[in-house]
Amino acid sequence: MALTGVLRPGIIQLRVLDMDDAIVHYRDRLGLQEVMTGDDGRVYLKGWDEFDHHSVVLREADEAGMDLFAFKVADTETLDQLAADVAAYGFEVSDVPAGEQPGVGLRKSFEIQSGHTIQLYAEVEQAEKTPTIVNPDVWPEEPRGMGVNRFDHALLYGPDIDQVTDFFCSVLGFSVAETAETPGGIAVWLTCSNKAHDIAFVPIPDPNSFHHVAFFLEEQNHVTHAGDVMAFYDIPIDVGPTRHGITRGRTIYFFDPSGNRNEVFAGGYTYYPDNPTRSWTADQIGKGIFYYERELNEAFLSVYT
Amino acid sequence: MALTGVLRPGIIQLRVLDMDDAIVHYRDRLGLQEVMTGDDGRVYLKGWDEFDHHSVVLREADEAGMDLFAFKVADTETLDQLAADVAAYGFEVSDVPAGEQPGVGLRKSFEIQSGHTIQLYAEVEQAEKTPTIVNPDVWPEEPRGMGVNRFDHALLYGPDIDQVTDFFCSVLGFSVAETAETPGGIAVWLTCSNKAHDIAFVPIPDPNSFHHVAFFLEEQNHVTHAGDVMAFYDIPIDVGPTRHGITRGRTIYFFDPSGNRNEVFAGGYTYYPDNPTRSWTADQIGKGIFYYERELNEAFLSVYT
Amino acid sequence: MALTGVLRPGIIQLRVLDMDDAIVHYRDRLGLQEVMTGDDGRVYLKGWDEFDHHSVVLREADEAGMDLFAFKVADTETLDQLAADVAAYGFEVSDVPAGEQPGVGLRKSFEIQSGHTIQLYAEVEQAEKTPTIVNPDVWPEEPRGMGVNRFDHALLYGPDIDQVTDFFCSVLGFSVAETAETPGGIAVWLTCSNKAHDIAFVPIPDPNSFHHVAFFLEEQNHVTHAGDVMAFYDIPIDVGPTRHGITRGRTIYFFDPSGNRNEVFAGGYTYYPDNPTRSWTADQIGKGIFYYERELNEAFLSVYT
Amino acid sequence: MALTGVLRPGIIQLRVLDMDDAIVHYRDRLGLQEVMTGDDGRVYLKGWDEFDHHSVVLREADEAGMDLFAFKVADTETLDQLAADVAAYGFEVSDVPAGEQPGVGLRKSFEIQSGHTIQLYAEVEQAEKTPTIVNPDVWPEEPRGMGVNRFDHALLYGPDIDQVTDFFCSVLGFSVAETAETPGGIAVWLTCSNKAHDIAFVPIPDPNSFHHVAFFLEEQNHVTHAGDVMAFYDIPIDVGPTRHGITRGRTIYFFDPSGNRNEVFAGGYTYYPDNPTRSWTADQIGKGIFYYERELNEAFLSVYT
Repeated sequence: MALTGVLRPGIIQLRVLDMDDAIVHYRDRLGLQEVMTGDDGRVYLKGWDEFDHHSVVLREADEAGMDLFAFKVADTETLDQLAADVAAYGFEVSDVPAGEQPGVGLRKSFEIQSGHTIQLYAEVEQAEKTPTIVNPDVWPEEPRGMGVNRFDHALLYGPDIDQVTDFFCSVLGFSVAETAETPGGIAVWLTCSNKAHDIAFVPIPDPNSFHHVAFFLEEQNHVTHAGDVMAFYDIPIDVGPTRHGITRGRTIYFFDPSGNRNEVFAGGYTYYPDNPTRSWTADQIGKGIFYYERELNEAFLSVYT
Repeated sequence: MALTGVLRPGIIQLRVLDMDDAIVHYRDRLGLQEVMTGDDGRVYLKGWDEFDHHSVVLREADEAGMDLFAFKVADTETLDQLAADVAAYGFEVSDVPAGEQPGVGLRKSFEIQSGHTIQLYAEVEQAEKTPTIVNPDVWPEEPRGMGVNRFDHALLYGPDIDQVTDFFCSVLGFSVAETAETPGGIAVWLTCSNKAHDIAFVPIPDPNSFHHVAFFLEEQNHVTHAGDVMAFYDIPIDVGPTRHGITRGRTIYFFDPSGNRNEVFAGGYTYYPDNPTRSWTADQIGKGIFYYERELNEAFLSVYT
Repeated sequence: MALTGVLRPGIIQLRVLDMDDAIVHYRDRLGLQEVMTGDDGRVYLKGWDEFDHHSVVLREADEAGMDLFAFKVADTETLDQLAADVAAYGFEVSDVPAGEQPGVGLRKSFEIQSGHTIQLYAEVEQAEKTPTIVNPDVWPEEPRGMGVNRFDHALLYGPDIDQVTDFFCSVLGFSVAETAETPGGIAVWLTCSNKAHDIAFVPIPDPNSFHHVAFFLEEQNHVTHAGDVMAFYDIPIDVGPTRHGITRGRTIYFFDPSGNRNEVFAGGYTYYPDNPTRSWTADQIGKGIFYYERELNEAFLSVYT
Repeated sequence: MALTGVLRPGIIQLRVLDMDDAIVHYRDRLGLQEVMTGDDGRVYLKGWDEFDHHSVVLREADEAGMDLFAFKVADTETLDQLAADVAAYGFEVSDVPAGEQPGVGLRKSFEIQSGHTIQLYAEVEQAEKTPTIVNPDVWPEEPRGMGVNRFDHALLYGPDIDQVTDFFCSVLGFSVAETAETPGGIAVWLTCSNKAHDIAFVPIPDPNSFHHVAFFLEEQNHVTHAGDVMAFYDIPIDVGPTRHGITRGRTIYFFDPSGNRNEVFAGGYTYYPDNPTRSWTADQIGKGIFYYERELNEAFLSVYT
């Protein structure tokens, strides 16, 4: 097999302060499809270009942030093997039973060194509304709002990122696409695919911190259209539309009504595991993060949930 | 490991009728970097976004067409295992010694059912001019001509495509991203990555036939810029700029001075091996190939080298 | 004054075979705003980026085609002067009273040598829904369908185009931006503005013939998005997305349900009246019309309404 | 005539601190064509899409800034009439003889209330390298660097902008496309064409101050390509790539080696003199200037030459 092991970022569960506001934001502004509301009030959404039951879960809470980040793995054998490897690495692995999130099979859950909850799962139902399979048009319906295709990646903040990197590479088979010397230490962009990153970490002392969740768009003009949508609806933009030096992606950072940072992302190079790791030195980190501005904005390191 | 086995289309060797004309075309118009000329007169080129020594080999000959299509695999253990698997599948596997193409290690070579020569290799030197590794700009130099990033894929024509598909999937670990009912039978788009296709086959009786080699561009506007370059230099366009229904990619088909069909390609969905196979029925094949025109042009099935 | 005389193409009245189908096409697919239905059943529409009461009038009839093409002029003094000049040139000028089209003042109407009805008017009410005036967003509402900004120009077919050109230039103050040697004689692209064309004529024997009406889009990626909308809703495309050599514009030709050809158009150079006239020779006319294809399609000269 | 009076911004003369650095910047980075060096050392350049002898003049001096801004008018009768009107308005009009800038005829020169030198001229030779006239390709040569098409407009800072506006509108036939409440008073965007602005003024006490000169690009993707060129060559960016609320244009502000602010600009709505004036209130001025950021950066009001 060519694509094996961990396939992709599959599910992110976010805490939001007001569910109605959050639904307007994620469904009508980002353009995600609303799949269902669970018995416990969690709301499930997905991108129009995703096959799986859902990829974004919103949970109403008193504090914004990320509950968990779950990867879809190739199959149940892979899941069992990886769960054993994770336990052998020294993490406590617990089972989240099938159905805890509707449509999703058994999840293996564990906390990594940075304090984040990472999960793995192999089985998930297909959504009712998927990309068309027979004679597919380029979209199953006209895009709405920003028209995001899919959940793409997240950037997480926390301590012990060197150890997190070791775990992701030695146990989960990720590669380090890029590194950057940040004030708190080496930040890493990790990939399990041809994408320039599937998850990234920046070292800070606060454990289990959430910088942003990114959604994929096809091209830079979709990113600027998303910017027009943000300005039209007065959605606060952090930075952009701009380009990252790191990954080369086109980007806007903006905030959901609860203060969770979102990103729309397009482009980025095609990564292969035999590529050398790219690195950014401390004096060029500004250009690495924001290629045109060539300096970090105040909020990049200080604002997270 | 997440990306394993066959990593990518690595090298394509093409026959050209006049080397000087071919160099102008591939270097100055497509914008490939000219790496070197070998002792036997073969010319080696690569895209500015590729790390390996070369990806395109031009050989002067009396007839246009493709000599061979070689895949880079993950490592030498993978190469040995795959070579054994290919032999066990019943193909005669021969060794092409390291250095037969400068910078490239041992290649395992075999002819598949459609008559094409496919090769696998694990070792290749890095080029002198690669993408920058430390504090990389978005390109290592200003793009020239069409500014193609990299060798992306090829579409091959020949008999027994059902068997070819079986071989690629069962031995080399490829997935069938899409199929289409063509006049000669089922055409297939095969992938070993997150790309919508790494190689594709359309069934016709003529063995070992070559439809096109594709080069990757970042976005649709780069594709139309490539079209401007083609019109400016009177490079014959077959079809486009347009969009494929199959893969959703932005595309232009055009011809090199020897009559080999080239493609510039951007976009295409993100593929995962747990995605269902998309399929196109005979009555919609025109839309599948050329999404806007919704009909095949005469040349698509009849012109190949 | 810098912009004087004839300001712009203001109104086009088209004949459609089925009004319901036409409304779906022009409102939901092109994305025009439906303004009102008149007492006589005519339907009035406008682009989201237009201030005037309407720009497109649909009239149900047994045959497709164009009833009239009306230019907005600077003011009533200009209207009176131009009407006198037209009459002095030898055309019979008749009055269409204010209100014959809701919101539009007195129109001066006359038939030009090619058999088309051309009108001039100075007064028109502003629409209820205009672009925002105070702290305007980039659009007054999220674009729908193809999201066309405005009525841009038309291409008309008919006899005696040399005389038509003389009339437009010597009486209405237009300039010839480009000419092309077509089988029936010299075609002309005429402008009264910085646009590369406001109206164009191709010589054929049939009088009063209509080739297409064009709607403006901001950029090429909006043109290809329009192509995606067309493919999704099975709207027949004539040619494109492509580029014109003439004007350099990005373009798709397609058909409304009655067989009237439409165009979405973006780009084109900035024209000034001291620019030399560009010209296309007979052997390069294909490239002039369709820059990438470099040949006329069969329909360009033979299909009109 | 439809386009009459003042046709366009024709020539801007800038002061630069080091001519060699300036030539590299304007020729190799912006992609202007170098036309010639005059006997007095001034260097003349133009965009590839301009017909006139030159549009940018660089003069080496001890201080950066703008010497003069000259408009091309329709013809010599217009020039005489406008010069008389300017004198009647109360400005002292002096003659700059033909040939003072090579290829340019008699210029009428005067100082406006804000302290800037404005000139008018009717005659200018065509450049040797113009856009092609017969069977023109979309460019006369492959674009280099940012590939700017043409000199587009300037934004000037100075006192008494209300009076400047009165002069431009009542004497030169300009319209006020937009206004904005800035800390120093009402800023104005003035147009003599279908462009959203040909010249703009922001009120500050310092007379004869220069904010930026803008160069036209066809589309937003050309603007972001320009941004890539700036980052690659370490050209300092002030703001962008972003979008203006005012004019809707796509933009980057950046600096030449002497500290003169440049802009690359694409898009902007199509303006007509019967359009209402758009206005921006003090609380929304940030969004007016930078549509996505929605706040002024420090440098916008404080940095000028």
